[in-house]
Amino acid sequence: MYQLAERLFPICRSLTGNGFRESLRILTEGLADIRTYEIPTGTQVFDWTVPKEWNIRGGYIETLDGKRVIDFADTNLHIMGYSTPIDAVISRDELLEHVYTQPDQPDWIPYVTSYYKERWGFCMSEKQKQALTEAQYHVVIDSDLKEGSLTLGDVVIKGETDEEIMFTTYLCHPSMANNELSGPVVWRALIDYVLAMPKRRYTYRFVINPETIGSIAYLSKNLDVLKKNLIAGFVLSCVGDNRTYSYVESKYANTLADRVVRNVLSYHYPEYKTYSFLKRGSDERQYCSAGVDLPVCGICRTKYAEYPEYHTSADDMSLISLEGLQGAYEVSTKIINALEYNAHYMMTCMGEPQLGKRGLYPTTSQKGLVDEVLALIDFIAYADGQGDLIEISNTIGVPVDILIPIVDKLTEHQLLIKK
Amino acid sequence: MYQLAERLFPICRSLTGNGFRESLRILTEGLADIRTYEIPTGTQVFDWTVPKEWNIRGGYIETLDGKRVIDFADTNLHIMGYSTPIDAVISRDELLEHVYTQPDQPDWIPYVTSYYKERWGFCMSEKQKQALTEAQYHVVIDSDLKEGSLTLGDVVIKGETDEEIMFTTYLCHPSMANNELSGPVVWRALIDYVLAMPKRRYTYRFVINPETIGSIAYLSKNLDVLKKNLIAGFVLSCVGDNRTYSYVESKYANTLADRVVRNVLSYHYPEYKTYSFLKRGSDERQYCSAGVDLPVCGICRTKYAEYPEYHTSADDMSLISLEGLQGAYEVSTKIINALEYNAHYMMTCMGEPQLGKRGLYPTTSQKGLVDEVLALIDFIAYADGQGDLIEISNTIGVPVDILIPIVDKLTEHQLLIKK
Amino acid sequence: MYQLAERLFPICRSLTGNGFRESLRILTEGLADIRTYEIPTGTQVFDWTVPKEWNIRGGYIETLDGKRVIDFADTNLHIMGYSTPIDAVISRDELLEHVYTQPDQPDWIPYVTSYYKERWGFCMSEKQKQALTEAQYHVVIDSDLKEGSLTLGDVVIKGETDEEIMFTTYLCHPSMANNELSGPVVWRALIDYVLAMPKRRYTYRFVINPETIGSIAYLSKNLDVLKKNLIAGFVLSCVGDNRTYSYVESKYANTLADRVVRNVLSYHYPEYKTYSFLKRGSDERQYCSAGVDLPVCGICRTKYAEYPEYHTSADDMSLISLEGLQGAYEVSTKIINALEYNAHYMMTCMGEPQLGKRGLYPTTSQKGLVDEVLALIDFIAYADGQGDLIEISNTIGVPVDILIPIVDKLTEHQLLIKK
Repeated sequence: MYQLAERLFPICRSLTGNGFRESLRILTEGLADIRTYEIPTGTQVFDWTVPKEWNIRGGYIETLDGKRVIDFADTNLHIMGYSTPIDAVISRDELLEHVYTQPDQPDWIPYVTSYYKERWGFCMSEKQKQALTEAQYHVVIDSDLKEGSLTLGDVVIKGETDEEIMFTTYLCHPSMANNELSGPVVWRALIDYVLAMPKRRYTYRFVINPETIGSIAYLSKNLDVLKKNLIAGFVLSCVGDNRTYSYVESKYANTLADRVVRNVLSYHYPEYKTYSFLKRGSDERQYCSAGVDLPVCGICRTKYAEYPEYHTSADDMSLISLEGLQGAYEVSTKIINALEYNAHYMMTCMGEPQLGKRGLYPTTSQKGLVDEVLALIDFIAYADGQGDLIEISNTIGVPVDILIPIVDKLTEHQLLIKK
Repeated sequence: MYQLAERLFPICRSLTGNGFRESLRILTEGLADIRTYEIPTGTQVFDWTVPKEWNIRGGYIETLDGKRVIDFADTNLHIMGYSTPIDAVISRDELLEHVYTQPDQPDWIPYVTSYYKERWGFCMSEKQKQALTEAQYHVVIDSDLKEGSLTLGDVVIKGETDEEIMFTTYLCHPSMANNELSGPVVWRALIDYVLAMPKRRYTYRFVINPETIGSIAYLSKNLDVLKKNLIAGFVLSCVGDNRTYSYVESKYANTLADRVVRNVLSYHYPEYKTYSFLKRGSDERQYCSAGVDLPVCGICRTKYAEYPEYHTSADDMSLISLEGLQGAYEVSTKIINALEYNAHYMMTCMGEPQLGKRGLYPTTSQKGLVDEVLALIDFIAYADGQGDLIEISNTIGVPVDILIPIVDKLTEHQLLIKK
Repeated sequence: MYQLAERLFPICRSLTGNGFRESLRILTEGLADIRTYEIPTGTQVFDWTVPKEWNIRGGYIETLDGKRVIDFADTNLHIMGYSTPIDAVISRDELLEHVYTQPDQPDWIPYVTSYYKERWGFCMSEKQKQALTEAQYHVVIDSDLKEGSLTLGDVVIKGETDEEIMFTTYLCHPSMANNELSGPVVWRALIDYVLAMPKRRYTYRFVINPETIGSIAYLSKNLDVLKKNLIAGFVLSCVGDNRTYSYVESKYANTLADRVVRNVLSYHYPEYKTYSFLKRGSDERQYCSAGVDLPVCGICRTKYAEYPEYHTSADDMSLISLEGLQGAYEVSTKIINALEYNAHYMMTCMGEPQLGKRGLYPTTSQKGLVDEVLALIDFIAYADGQGDLIEISNTIGVPVDILIPIVDKLTEHQLLIKK
């Protein structure tokens, strides 16, 4: 995963354009069933209109004697996203009106965009701005903003039922590592995981698009099927650092998606942070919007907007690690397994079964019972069809990971059925 | 409001009688639609019987040489409410059997009544009692207790629907300011407020009567219409001091009345005190009684029975202030406005609307979002028809006051409808 | 109760056998309606098979020169429950493979059984084991394990309705006092209490059997009637010491049985301990098992497995006391009374009734109200048919004991009916 992120890092992505397309091509190499959508500029998607396509080739600020002060070639964050082209000599004062910095983090270049109002701009560190002392500068942005299309992609992997589990992330950010190449590379690893599963109860939908407008466009094409089939969806964002785990609640924090994330994180990393939906900020905004109301929550390591490097040039490849990505991947596969096994189970016998005759219980009785036997008899007591596996796991304090072999063993002994 | 209270203060009111009638006349001066009820002595009202009417002209205790020790002319609290008449010279010992004091508050005269058993009595401070050292006294109470009637009043102001909001208070207390002239004068100001509203979704019912028997009598005449139409009612009592705000829960604390009071007070005065229904003591006793079960809770500044001056001569005009009355008035008008706007709203578009094109969202995206935009997008997310406006206000942490212009703006942009 | 326990203490009881039968005979002396069941060895009861019957006459370990080291005559705990017979001279090493001790409690003999695997064994204190220094020993266990039957007993006392309240306990433990002669002797006292009640709304079922297999066998014969009629059941276990009170929740802690236990203990002994169903260990395991799911919880003084003497020879007659047994008996009779009176009550009048004219309310009104009047008017307010008596008791903070005479008084004044 880390190497794939390294390969994608230098490409300048945005809401639209060839950087996005090239990144999507690399990210989905070898996937037979990737489907892409190109939605033309001007298309109405719900309340929004698909904007023009933006492409950029370069840009810089030079002194009049030809010394480059700022260059897109150094980092694509230097050009404001969706900047219109310019090639002019202008005064320092005029230039400064088009310069964006993050004054409270003077060494870092902020990530700034202007998707829906046409303007041009340079982003730089506050220190670089302070060093602009010449009277005039030559400014060049070699971009174009014209009719084109918005690119979306998805991979749908069929299971035994039409009920769906969705993982979604976004690919519209330029050179930032945690936000957001971490989501796409974990997303890709999960596709490979699901393809390798020997059998799948659920259909899996993996969606990737530019944030906000991309999700809106995707929903405008797929809302009916999602309303009908989606049982749990997860927005992967900022899943590459190694500091903590975070969970962003769905609107009412009461969906199966919320329940499984809380269950898995409570055993995997009990100190995980929960953020209310009021702290949302990624595509759960659209998936949980009024009328859409899908069962979708967010999974992060350190959440977007909660770490200092967020949306700056400091969110670089040193911020993420294989260990960080791997942790998010493991949480996600635990979620998949918990959902695959989640059901209302019922014992086939009345009273406790006689475990001793099946070699599942000690044959002498003295004070004390070991934990494995406790997990088994507690599961058996609650396998009454009332709560599903996740609820039983919460109630008896045993991770689903440990309940899965118990389910298998009891099923094999014909003591357990699904309700 | 304070001046009206000053004018009413000296009048000797009781459950029945001309003091009550005169106070009601002054309180409702200029109101075209005031309706009064006179319910004759002996009328059965639910489990109760309307008592005789009591009127009093004066009363005193004199030494045998004609020195007045206690005089009704000083304060009408000196005569026990519903005292029978007497004019006799009696021994000190006999007199003391008819003297009521509050020994733990030796400077203050307690407020004492005996509505349902005929007896006579004087109330005085413990110090005044200690000074009764003569062997004999001349005691005079010039009152009468005979067939008459119980007086109730209400003002009903029609709205677009028959659904009703009620404010009720009581006028049966003699010269005490907070308990209870504060309720009546705020009640009157609210009538003027509602009459001045440009339009009213709800019908407003303003009820005033003597406490307990008055509410029972009122309910016995109006229970059917209240059961059918009342959506929220509020007992105003002790709303004139300036110490805190209090809320007395309805029986199960789960009515719309409770919800709107908690919502408004939580933003207006977060330190407000909540009293369980077990701490009730005013007419919510009747409105929430078994079988009646109307959605009514109580609003106070410092609650009755919770301040030292309660039911004594120290509850005088110095205890209340315009500022104190004004605070209760403002809370009440906020309650009215919240109820008028309370509804289940739904967005008309899927996904978030594009606020930028309507000038409601910043056009460049960089870290950080201002509070007004947050209130707007949070409201939009929850405008899905599930929770009403009060619930959304609670969930997103934004006062209804601030949501009302947002509702208006989104409605105007045709983005919002009522469910 | 204590004397009955003393009489039963020396008898060697087990899952099956004559010790159990003799104990049951003594325990139910004088009861006309005791019903016993003998279920033959080999009978299938749900998932279990009734084991062979075990009887024991004696057993010891002797040195080769005839000195008795361990003797069943001293305490029947010395022979492992369900031990097969033996009469042999064996080496110390071989003997030690059949010796059970509780090394962390070196002075006490542990209680050990091997019901479902045939083996022989001696139980002794760790100190006794350390003293086994001879090379060879003569070991004798004079027991037999053969076709026979499992003994159950119940007493069903008819009431006005078929709805049932059940008390159950178990009699399969040898010489231990708290666990478990305390349960049986309190159980017997409750039978006498119920028989002496002047009238009974409910039918009472008193069940006694060996633990686990006995409950399973009992359920296999009575599940239909219990599923149909049981409204609340209680497992009495470890109810003889005098340290605390404990309550073991039913599976979801939401049955009438749970509600009444919590209510009674919260007033009787507010410091009582609550144990989740995850800490269960007695016959609630079977009564709450998946599919059975009866409304049954557990009542203890200090709970089994939570006191040091549990399942050892130190659980002797000095551990229990009449005071301890009496406390559990009183809690149980309070539970019975609360259930007998539990109903949804409704006032027959609207508004508060006029209590004064019935002598139930003070005739002068001044600050302050006494507790008895408060309990009365609070009960009246909540007697609206919504919550049952137990819920009202919880809400208004008044024990059911005190509400029962209020219910009687209001009923007598025709102010109250059952819904």
